[in-house]
Amino acid sequence: MARATQLRDLGEFELIERIARVARRQRATGVVRGIGDDAAVLRPRAGADDVVSTDSRVEGVHFRWETDPPRVVGQTALAAALSDLAAMGAAPRGFTWSFAAPPGLSLARFDGLTAGLLAMARATRCPLVGGNLTRARETSLHLTVLGAVSRGRALLRWARVGDRVFVTGTLGNAALSRRVAASSGRPLRWVPTPRLEAGRRLARIPGVRGCVDVSDGLLADLGHLIGPERNCPIDLDRLPRQHGFNARCRRLGVEPGRLAAAGGEDYELLFAMAPDGPSEAQLARRLGVRVTELGCVAAGPPVASQGRGWRHFRGRRGPA
Amino acid sequence: MARATQLRDLGEFELIERIARVARRQRATGVVRGIGDDAAVLRPRAGADDVVSTDSRVEGVHFRWETDPPRVVGQTALAAALSDLAAMGAAPRGFTWSFAAPPGLSLARFDGLTAGLLAMARATRCPLVGGNLTRARETSLHLTVLGAVSRGRALLRWARVGDRVFVTGTLGNAALSRRVAASSGRPLRWVPTPRLEAGRRLARIPGVRGCVDVSDGLLADLGHLIGPERNCPIDLDRLPRQHGFNARCRRLGVEPGRLAAAGGEDYELLFAMAPDGPSEAQLARRLGVRVTELGCVAAGPPVASQGRGWRHFRGRRGPA
Repeated sequence: MARATQLRDLGEFELIERIARVARRQRATGVVRGIGDDAAVLRPRAGADDVVSTDSRVEGVHFRWETDPPRVVGQTALAAALSDLAAMGAAPRGFTWSFAAPPGLSLARFDGLTAGLLAMARATRCPLVGGNLTRARETSLHLTVLGAVSRGRALLRWARVGDRVFVTGTLGNAALSRRVAASSGRPLRWVPTPRLEAGRRLARIPGVRGCVDVSDGLLADLGHLIGPERNCPIDLDRLPRQHGFNARCRRLGVEPGRLAAAGGEDYELLFAMAPDGPSEAQLARRLGVRVTELGCVAAGPPVASQGRGWRHFRGRRGPA
Repeated sequence: MARATQLRDLGEFELIERIARVARRQRATGVVRGIGDDAAVLRPRAGADDVVSTDSRVEGVHFRWETDPPRVVGQTALAAALSDLAAMGAAPRGFTWSFAAPPGLSLARFDGLTAGLLAMARATRCPLVGGNLTRARETSLHLTVLGAVSRGRALLRWARVGDRVFVTGTLGNAALSRRVAASSGRPLRWVPTPRLEAGRRLARIPGVRGCVDVSDGLLADLGHLIGPERNCPIDLDRLPRQHGFNARCRRLGVEPGRLAAAGGEDYELLFAMAPDGPSEAQLARRLGVRVTELGCVAAGPPVASQGRGWRHFRGRRGPA
């Protein structure tokens, strides 16, 4: 059987040209110069601040070639990076892709990753504007997203005692999908949706205090939102879940509330509102997504049951 | 003997706090929000375009722990990334650092990398504004630099037939230093200087056409500047070199002209000027660095002797 084409069979510039060919179909407002120069040139909108964030995906840590289709890996990588822009209330302007991979990586996987990244780029109007390719022993993607927010209106990590805490959408879907894929041997299909439109709308609502995205798990990210000397008791049974979530968890022998609370990679928005701000129903209408009120910020250190979420260099999670 | 402290002994947030502690000493104009949120917020200068570029360094490919001090690896990584801003005529505004490393990496190496990055950040007034840490099997740094250039004045890759081609500084120093370190067993000390001030001044000189930085090797990057259907014959013996360069090459049994032409990682600026633009001496005075005229852009494909420079997935270089 003939060996599949690998990265080493093409030169760096042939690979860049392969990416550029797909990228040229992008609609790119404000991009003066994209792929193919020393750097990209983007024209800022008047009265806007620049928002920049970096995220990475490493083979064997964040994804596995055995279960994760390359296209899904690419889509998820950009969605995760864009989620940080959403949590700042920023609109995407473009992204760069630093890619490290072994020379023996198949061209099919490279093309799949590229297609996934570019599909998410199109869906979110965030053009690929530059990047870097390098040889390495393992595959990793490092994405930097650049966005814009009206001057001084970025949603920072901030909450006051007495603020009410809300979350968009439903929780635990990523963790459940990963467990279902692992137990069934079927490929992972789940791709997160960055809450870009909801984030932009949220930044304009009076009374909004601060916002984070749920990437490490709800309880861990709640700590990031409210800070170390605060707590916010949450009833795990009230966490928003997709229809059928509990039944699917039980079939896998997993406790649904804990999976929703600590599963991670939800990429929903978790935010704090002033006590006299809009209600759950008003927020849902204004943001255009499901919104659930989780609790109220109180003084004092967090309670022990709130778990730890993902620990990058220790590789263990909380109680879930 | 007690084991040295490793990344796995600290949590992700303790490591981030270690970086933030060094980073807080930075002077940071225009940074509304730096390390510690979902994303950084930077305030653009009126009438400026954003310039963004990504570069990476992988253990075993771009550096070796055995020969390269961690501080030098950090300094060089940021210098290389900033060189792309210099080649656009842009001033740095800030950078993000995506870091992947094995849990067994020593804290001393981590701190050395951080110190090196932050030293270069201070020297170039380019604050660290965000990043990401993740576990991986090998160590790699992925830096994204953000800069600003006066609207519409970015130095793109461009040259016309008849233009004169110039290079700043001297060539071959990185390649020679690496060979000296390898043959002597002494640690690598050489750190490149990104030509940021020269690039900014160059962008204001009438008659300048286009510019690239010399990263893959002069001959390879010359091809990037002038494009595929052009050539620019160059006398390798006339390439600018540091005092004593030829003698040191001969002691190592290396041909000096070829090392200067294809060595790579010089991070000098290579640029094209209109025929009636300033002379070599005038340019040197205006840019504040040594400038050498290399030749003239002609029509027709490049001559075979021009070499290939660095091939990322094939891992071989040109004739040097």
